Amino acid sequence: MSSFGTLFRVTTYGESHCKSVGCIVDGVPPGLDLTEEDIQPQLTRRRPGQSKLSTPRNEKDKVAIQSGTEHGKTLGTPIGMMVLNEDHRPKDYSETDVYPRPSHADYTYLQKYGIKASSGGGRSSARETIGRVAAGAIAEKFLQKAHGVEIVAFVSAVGSAAINRDPSSPEFQDLLENITREKVDTFDPIRCPDPVVAEQATKIVEETRDANDSIGGVVTCVVRNLPTGLGEPAFDKLEALLAHAMLSIPATKGFEIGSGFYGVSIKGSKHNDAFYLDPSTGRFRTKTNYSGGIQGGISNGENIYFSVAFKPPATISQEQQTASYEGKDGVLKARGRHDPNVVPRAVPIVEAMTALVLADSLLIQKSREYGKSMLQ
Amino acid sequence: MSSFGTLFRVTTYGESHCKSVGCIVDGVPPGLDLTEEDIQPQLTRRRPGQSKLSTPRNEKDKVAIQSGTEHGKTLGTPIGMMVLNEDHRPKDYSETDVYPRPSHADYTYLQKYGIKASSGGGRSSARETIGRVAAGAIAEKFLQKAHGVEIVAFVSAVGSAAINRDPSSPEFQDLLENITREKVDTFDPIRCPDPVVAEQATKIVEETRDANDSIGGVVTCVVRNLPTGLGEPAFDKLEALLAHAMLSIPATKGFEIGSGFYGVSIKGSKHNDAFYLDPSTGRFRTKTNYSGGIQGGISNGENIYFSVAFKPPATISQEQQTASYEGKDGVLKARGRHDPNVVPRAVPIVEAMTALVLADSLLIQKSREYGKSMLQ
Amino acid sequence: MSSFGTLFRVTTYGESHCKSVGCIVDGVPPGLDLTEEDIQPQLTRRRPGQSKLSTPRNEKDKVAIQSGTEHGKTLGTPIGMMVLNEDHRPKDYSETDVYPRPSHADYTYLQKYGIKASSGGGRSSARETIGRVAAGAIAEKFLQKAHGVEIVAFVSAVGSAAINRDPSSPEFQDLLENITREKVDTFDPIRCPDPVVAEQATKIVEETRDANDSIGGVVTCVVRNLPTGLGEPAFDKLEALLAHAMLSIPATKGFEIGSGFYGVSIKGSKHNDAFYLDPSTGRFRTKTNYSGGIQGGISNGENIYFSVAFKPPATISQEQQTASYEGKDGVLKARGRHDPNVVPRAVPIVEAMTALVLADSLLIQKSREYGKSMLQ
Amino acid sequence: MSSFGTLFRVTTYGESHCKSVGCIVDGVPPGLDLTEEDIQPQLTRRRPGQSKLSTPRNEKDKVAIQSGTEHGKTLGTPIGMMVLNEDHRPKDYSETDVYPRPSHADYTYLQKYGIKASSGGGRSSARETIGRVAAGAIAEKFLQKAHGVEIVAFVSAVGSAAINRDPSSPEFQDLLENITREKVDTFDPIRCPDPVVAEQATKIVEETRDANDSIGGVVTCVVRNLPTGLGEPAFDKLEALLAHAMLSIPATKGFEIGSGFYGVSIKGSKHNDAFYLDPSTGRFRTKTNYSGGIQGGISNGENIYFSVAFKPPATISQEQQTASYEGKDGVLKARGRHDPNVVPRAVPIVEAMTALVLADSLLIQKSREYGKSMLQ
Repeated sequence: MSSFGTLFRVTTYGESHCKSVGCIVDGVPPGLDLTEEDIQPQLTRRRPGQSKLSTPRNEKDKVAIQSGTEHGKTLGTPIGMMVLNEDHRPKDYSETDVYPRPSHADYTYLQKYGIKASSGGGRSSARETIGRVAAGAIAEKFLQKAHGVEIVAFVSAVGSAAINRDPSSPEFQDLLENITREKVDTFDPIRCPDPVVAEQATKIVEETRDANDSIGGVVTCVVRNLPTGLGEPAFDKLEALLAHAMLSIPATKGFEIGSGFYGVSIKGSKHNDAFYLDPSTGRFRTKTNYSGGIQGGISNGENIYFSVAFKPPATISQEQQTASYEGKDGVLKARGRHDPNVVPRAVPIVEAMTALVLADSLLIQKSREYGKSMLQ
Repeated sequence: MSSFGTLFRVTTYGESHCKSVGCIVDGVPPGLDLTEEDIQPQLTRRRPGQSKLSTPRNEKDKVAIQSGTEHGKTLGTPIGMMVLNEDHRPKDYSETDVYPRPSHADYTYLQKYGIKASSGGGRSSARETIGRVAAGAIAEKFLQKAHGVEIVAFVSAVGSAAINRDPSSPEFQDLLENITREKVDTFDPIRCPDPVVAEQATKIVEETRDANDSIGGVVTCVVRNLPTGLGEPAFDKLEALLAHAMLSIPATKGFEIGSGFYGVSIKGSKHNDAFYLDPSTGRFRTKTNYSGGIQGGISNGENIYFSVAFKPPATISQEQQTASYEGKDGVLKARGRHDPNVVPRAVPIVEAMTALVLADSLLIQKSREYGKSMLQ
Repeated sequence: MSSFGTLFRVTTYGESHCKSVGCIVDGVPPGLDLTEEDIQPQLTRRRPGQSKLSTPRNEKDKVAIQSGTEHGKTLGTPIGMMVLNEDHRPKDYSETDVYPRPSHADYTYLQKYGIKASSGGGRSSARETIGRVAAGAIAEKFLQKAHGVEIVAFVSAVGSAAINRDPSSPEFQDLLENITREKVDTFDPIRCPDPVVAEQATKIVEETRDANDSIGGVVTCVVRNLPTGLGEPAFDKLEALLAHAMLSIPATKGFEIGSGFYGVSIKGSKHNDAFYLDPSTGRFRTKTNYSGGIQGGISNGENIYFSVAFKPPATISQEQQTASYEGKDGVLKARGRHDPNVVPRAVPIVEAMTALVLADSLLIQKSREYGKSMLQ
Repeated sequence: MSSFGTLFRVTTYGESHCKSVGCIVDGVPPGLDLTEEDIQPQLTRRRPGQSKLSTPRNEKDKVAIQSGTEHGKTLGTPIGMMVLNEDHRPKDYSETDVYPRPSHADYTYLQKYGIKASSGGGRSSARETIGRVAAGAIAEKFLQKAHGVEIVAFVSAVGSAAINRDPSSPEFQDLLENITREKVDTFDPIRCPDPVVAEQATKIVEETRDANDSIGGVVTCVVRNLPTGLGEPAFDKLEALLAHAMLSIPATKGFEIGSGFYGVSIKGSKHNDAFYLDPSTGRFRTKTNYSGGIQGGISNGENIYFSVAFKPPATISQEQQTASYEGKDGVLKARGRHDPNVVPRAVPIVEAMTALVLADSLLIQKSREYGKSMLQ
């Protein structure tokens, strides 16, 4: 379905070539200062056409708040948001009336719905994520105001060029501790905040583009200053909600939290995060953070960090041998230029989905804390 | 929360040392042949104490159906199931009154609830998964009866001993195509269906056990014969639901579907799964399956396969330097013998959660298909 | 929250004086012929300012579909709909900055959210129902296409002028059997399809208006041709969902299904609806229909009928002695002319909410029927 | 489905003649003193066979807590509860293999599920409400501890014998203000706290019983000391949730809140509840309470009161002319003695469902209040 969340809930609408795309964000706390200025920056970061490395399709993506605010403050009522679709060019995609594009959603949507949008990716288009990013910007502002929560995502791999994500790596932990969104964006347009890897990654993207091919990557995200206690056993563990959120982003293939797949080979005596009391803050901390800030499905106050794998974009600028809807072998021709790598644009989407999970979990946990406070 | 699913929904209850653990399974289609015999085998596979490699705690885990069936057939009403907790030994864990166990849920549960179960892992104990496995056995039987769906999970890695999960590997694809649950269990107790890796893995577990330490692993799961069309854009993509389900299993740290993290480095021209019409079956197929059986969030009829990373168990048989609840540094003593590696026991849990996701998605999709059928 | 439904789900947004109001309808079956023409008529029926009996505020309420259709057919994806708010006159309501209006939502919204919309009713305004009516029109079209379902609501009482709703009354049963929406609208603007009661009701509204007062009424709704089997025990009985839907409409105070409050005094031997097989249709029928088409929470194929009580509108054109937000006694002055009676306008809202409940229940039941069909 | 609630959620299981009935209550705040002693009284009040006016079927209904508490305190984890079904007498009902009982759920369950429980009412049996009452007792204890909330239901009508529920009646308002559960139970077994009406009602029940017939009634419920702000616009208004809850109770046909159906004929100038500041408490109050404690879907701090109509029980001790499952006309014989009137037993069920709605709404609202508190 097109809704996500329990108390802080977003519902999105829109396809690639309809009149507009947008969302309704329900459950936003009242009294939050909010105008389009708070939302537009992340939409702009999500926008394609920002540099030579990404697709030239120039979208403007100006968001307009429809409801839920007055005099620049949220009312507690649902916030409707809309972004017009300005670029209607269904003709570009006409060949897809004959061929379902390999590894795209054309075939499965037809199987599911018995009907196919005649143009573009329809609902499976990345334009669907506009509503998510707009909603996430609100969630993020609330988290920031309420608890100083910081959410920063960045590209940690493109193809084989990768930052070492082994949680034992001091460089990686240092990155998680200190990286800012501003710093990430200085690595324009690759958003990989390691000069060496960024250079390799850029080169890979350029070579891939020149080969009319595409390549995937990894986005890593860190959350700092999150209160303890978020996440609900048993099925709605915080990492389960994050995994759900991340794998709902188009083109994702994997998720790992904390030590992730690396943790498989680490002995328990090392992997266990021993406790200590931080005398300077009075906070209960862990000496290491293989857990990734979540234990037993509940946030422990340490940094939450996780990584998301993105496959290479399915749309490539070269011919593909495949079958038509009627089952006849043939060649799907290449049309125009396409984004050889989407991970830099995925950065704000990962941040948005993270913020949506956390805002919802926070509201739920605060009701739990109220409950226990009344019984003490 | 303790419920999972929309139309096929399980709700579980129970801690490590309460009277019983169990679940309610709502939305089971009526007319399914069902007795305890259908459920017990997976519970027994989940049970610890089956061999020298796992913990000696001998649980019997006999399930009793409370409701929802008559004369061995389901009625369509909720199925209550219960397993008594026979082994109450709170004293074993008394030291945890003083120390929150590192990387366990003691501290975070206290943060969340302001109260801690005085013994065992409470709700975070693996005994909570009994209800899931019981529910999953019902889901699985329905899927099998309705569409011949096969779900087989197996251990693909223990520590550094790993089956090559690169989706380009013919051996891996062959394993996914042919592995059976019976075959997996012939590799007793390691459940890794590759003789060489199984031997390495067994050795790693033994060495780890002898070092009073613990080690993690990977469980891979394949689903065969699933109908097309399952999964709901945008937020409830099938892989998102599977990721949610898997990361809700205790001790999991990662999830990857299809090419997963490997897919990051594969070029789109290779990664794209070209279509063809299989003349022998008349089915629309893909030549490769990097997608892992899901495209655009919707099942395409190919095998679904995914892997789940498990961290090393937090409970180890050696002393740990850590802090008490009061923030004083100290040593948490080791008590008894503990499971050095849980991945073989996780196999039926992964299968169960998979079945729960798929049964629910199937019921939802069938309502979609009805809708469209009425309009043609 | 602002969402309603499980598989067929509407989410609404909008206050009385924001930029637009609207909704997202998720889960609409694909392949339904749908344009604004299908939605506008019910919005127009909902519109105030249609006659001398209702408020002169002239809203145009033109709906614009944003997404989810292509070439006039639904795609199965979410349908975004928007209606601009054209009439921004916050000044009219400025006195409400001082006084919470009696029996309005001003005080409770402030208690809930700690903030109040500076104008109009904010989210509690009847304009919120625009999204519901638009969504309901889609649900209704699907029900009609799929099963020929007919939903007709009408005014059955205004003040003390009332159609006899005793389920034993042959005239009432005849009305339920035969009333059409067209017929209802011939009683313009009172929508009470009994000439005598309509005349009395009109007189009551006129007298009430002239006294600067307001008066309530009852809307009765009948559903014909609904398939059997809809509704989910135990908590989601069909009448429970209808009651939820109806009591979510602003200004409602009561709901009764079938015999309702009349049924309290009828003996079981009379109230029980005996079965018979209708030889002409082969359908299993009941001789009477005190049950109102639902037994055990599940539709039995007979007409569903229920009534909804509406209180007198809280906004009246006379002074009211009350207290200011600061707790000082004072007089809230009357401003302009207000609708003395809203029940005729509530007719399409009741129809819309009914359609939303039924479309959702139908989709859910069809998944149940699929389940059992696979096991026979 | 068999679940109810969002943050405080009950899931029930069980039919009339299976092994046990029970429930899982999820989201109970931690730290609540809770043993079976807190739950049993309401179950006992619900029990049949307590007097000559009700059915002689003697159920013991002893509840056993399975999980979620330790040392008599809740842990915050799900509370499993179970009541054994001791009275298995499927033979009594064997004639229902031939005839669907009129106005019972036999036919509709068959339509829904394609299978029928061979005995008793199956899932539609009143035994399903045991889980609700057990869960409600916990919700109620929390509400009482946290805010001193009082919930008292009583019989206000049996057949034509009725307490005047006109909200203008000082006697009725006095009853709502002062009635206690203890007082209600002094009117044993009729639970109608008006001596005159109680006597009439008792006589009606006796006459109905002697005529082998059945009769319905009304249960009125009042909630005192509820905090303001509960209920969620637009679809989850507090009265909508209460209506949903009440109409989910077997045999209910109607619901009215505050002025209800009476309010239809009251002019707005009278019906509007004017505000005043209560100098003794500093609380903002209303002089009248036609609203029934809810305005705009949100609690305003006044008493919430509502009434629920119950139809005559469908099972009667006399022959009924009806049709068999095969469509043949025939006579369904009477078997044994049956409850001629169930409303006194419905009293604790109404209280339980009320408590479940309020506990859930309270937890949700407290998360809203947290949200706004962080932004001030």
